[in-house]
Amino acid sequence: MEDKDTGRLEAFSDGVFAVAITLLVLNIKIPSQILADKDLWPLLSSQWPMLVAYITSFATVGIMWINHNRLFQQIKHADTGLHLLNLLLLLSIVILPVPTALSAEYLIRLDQHAAAIIYCETFFLMSCSFDLLWYYAAHHNRLLGKDTDKHEVMAISQQYLFGPLGYSIAFGIAWINTPICIIFCFFLALFFALPARSPRSLSANRDSIHVSQEQR
Amino acid sequence: MEDKDTGRLEAFSDGVFAVAITLLVLNIKIPSQILADKDLWPLLSSQWPMLVAYITSFATVGIMWINHNRLFQQIKHADTGLHLLNLLLLLSIVILPVPTALSAEYLIRLDQHAAAIIYCETFFLMSCSFDLLWYYAAHHNRLLGKDTDKHEVMAISQQYLFGPLGYSIAFGIAWINTPICIIFCFFLALFFALPARSPRSLSANRDSIHVSQEQR
Amino acid sequence: MEDKDTGRLEAFSDGVFAVAITLLVLNIKIPSQILADKDLWPLLSSQWPMLVAYITSFATVGIMWINHNRLFQQIKHADTGLHLLNLLLLLSIVILPVPTALSAEYLIRLDQHAAAIIYCETFFLMSCSFDLLWYYAAHHNRLLGKDTDKHEVMAISQQYLFGPLGYSIAFGIAWINTPICIIFCFFLALFFALPARSPRSLSANRDSIHVSQEQR
Amino acid sequence: MEDKDTGRLEAFSDGVFAVAITLLVLNIKIPSQILADKDLWPLLSSQWPMLVAYITSFATVGIMWINHNRLFQQIKHADTGLHLLNLLLLLSIVILPVPTALSAEYLIRLDQHAAAIIYCETFFLMSCSFDLLWYYAAHHNRLLGKDTDKHEVMAISQQYLFGPLGYSIAFGIAWINTPICIIFCFFLALFFALPARSPRSLSANRDSIHVSQEQR
Repeated sequence: MEDKDTGRLEAFSDGVFAVAITLLVLNIKIPSQILADKDLWPLLSSQWPMLVAYITSFATVGIMWINHNRLFQQIKHADTGLHLLNLLLLLSIVILPVPTALSAEYLIRLDQHAAAIIYCETFFLMSCSFDLLWYYAAHHNRLLGKDTDKHEVMAISQQYLFGPLGYSIAFGIAWINTPICIIFCFFLALFFALPARSPRSLSANRDSIHVSQEQR
Repeated sequence: MEDKDTGRLEAFSDGVFAVAITLLVLNIKIPSQILADKDLWPLLSSQWPMLVAYITSFATVGIMWINHNRLFQQIKHADTGLHLLNLLLLLSIVILPVPTALSAEYLIRLDQHAAAIIYCETFFLMSCSFDLLWYYAAHHNRLLGKDTDKHEVMAISQQYLFGPLGYSIAFGIAWINTPICIIFCFFLALFFALPARSPRSLSANRDSIHVSQEQR
Repeated sequence: MEDKDTGRLEAFSDGVFAVAITLLVLNIKIPSQILADKDLWPLLSSQWPMLVAYITSFATVGIMWINHNRLFQQIKHADTGLHLLNLLLLLSIVILPVPTALSAEYLIRLDQHAAAIIYCETFFLMSCSFDLLWYYAAHHNRLLGKDTDKHEVMAISQQYLFGPLGYSIAFGIAWINTPICIIFCFFLALFFALPARSPRSLSANRDSIHVSQEQR
Repeated sequence: MEDKDTGRLEAFSDGVFAVAITLLVLNIKIPSQILADKDLWPLLSSQWPMLVAYITSFATVGIMWINHNRLFQQIKHADTGLHLLNLLLLLSIVILPVPTALSAEYLIRLDQHAAAIIYCETFFLMSCSFDLLWYYAAHHNRLLGKDTDKHEVMAISQQYLFGPLGYSIAFGIAWINTPICIIFCFFLALFFALPARSPRSLSANRDSIHVSQEQR
């Protein structure tokens, strides 16, 4: 009974994540004329910036979904505020194909930075919405389960602080060098794939180790 | 056992809402040529009407989903009539990307009103389908759970009356001023994000306050 | 435990139905130039054939989903054969946007019939796949629940015979008159929205009326 | 309780599979001008390579979904590694519409092989990701249920070895003859629709037959 409140919110979010992650591929265009092999190979090879941007966005959305999943293992109840903040998060995810296509086109134009700036800005907004969602739910255990582990909540809160921070740095890099910026975003996504547990055991809550042992 | 009848109807609706809300973004086009930064910024900035229309439609569909979710916390059974009325609602939601794209293009053409009129008309049909769905299910408790709270049902019924009414007003504004009309639609969506509870406690059923206290 | 086997098959099918029904809308194009109101109204009005074809396809897919739902209230188990036949059904549904777009374009060209013929052919294949799925599952109660009502199974089997039959007639009309053919398809879809129960009580199994009374 | 860990992973994967399988159809274009019947028929007939490539991709993704379903009847738990490997699999599936469209265009150009090579390469990556996912989960029963049948796990592991092997052969054929290569891919998909059980009973574990009898 405890985890029922958020069932449809999760199902709807899964749907939006799934469609958004798949629509990214619509940006990859195939050549409109029939070409000989010797002309097709270089043409397809020249599309690698699109592939880099595509995979970075795919990884970011996919790993954002993994974290959405992690959050809702803690969040057991839903209210109007949570629904609206979740919509805000979905809005930032759904719009991602646009800056992805843009930054892919400009990836090899080292003197132009507008596209990369917009790309990082979207990621920044995404991570802010994500944090808002979590802090809203976790504030005074508002929407969490009764048996939630305090240390786990703290560990998640700590890790998510790095979201807006990391994407601020990416945003700064975007003004200087587009390719480095996109590679940085890719590794930032991988960082968030790591579970929040490790920081906890390294942090000050050493006396709680015997507590964490008994959770699965 | 009681809430099983509508499981797949909800899953299918979640899917349609999720796809429809994501397809809206396909309307946002990126410039087809590579431009220098100083040309790209103004070009992107000039696309704000598209963004306004997009966010308004996103908010409306998202909040319509929140309300769909609310309804199906009350509706426990499904029959053919409910399925057909639900399809009617989904039809009006799925078609929304078309008037959204249209009204975005005409948002800054203050002398042209056709696009805004069609946009509001779609919202009007959407809210009518929504009301039909609810009144069909709630009529004599046809498809609601046995333990449904009468006052909650009345509160929802009351709030949803404002749907067709509100969009009629928006429709009137569309003939006069497109931007005001779209902003009005955006705030109308936000109004429906508010839960139906508050109107109830303000309404005539004051003697039932001790009843509502014990529901969570 | 009994209805678990088909859970993911239903979820996946729901997803495909939801995406297919929403992609239909991508066929509706908006004018690419900005027009004055007096030019826009007639242009949009001239798109009614697209709307007629769109609504017919939407209704057919939606009602096919309602019937898919009905079938899987009886089908409790899944095997490889059922999965493959279900994929065949989904294939015919997913391809529908193509003939829909085609027949919409040719709806007002009364002397051309190719589009309508292909449209009906798709519906015919769809209803055949649907019947195959059902007869495969219902044959000797292969995949049905243990407590399935025989008369209900017979009633469903009987109603679904009309699918290929009805679309054969539509196919015949397509060679003569496209608009009548599409209207016929629309009403055929509505016919399948009717539950299979009524034919049963009208049929020869009159002695079973007291049985059907006690079901839900 | 045992099969709960992977619930949302399955729901998200179902969504991605459903969208990817439906987006394939966007590659099928309809003629942009209105043509007379006698011109339309040959034009549509000339699109058969698109249909062949489309159906091959549809079958491959659909049957990959059937196998994903089979795997997660064994896999009961999810960790970060499984989530990331699942994303890798989804990435390879989601990108499929691009090589499908490409190979469809070049299917009748018997002297050009680039498209078919890329098509098979995608399938090869797909089957490798699939195997990685399975071996990661099955290694020392890492994420399987406690009551998993060893012989079934071995049978699955054995069958999936044929994935990368089969697509390597397809890759070889792609350098020689595109149509044969695509037909080969189609039948390879059908091979994976067969359940993994039959190889087991044929294999060395004959003494376990009485064990397998009592599983459903």
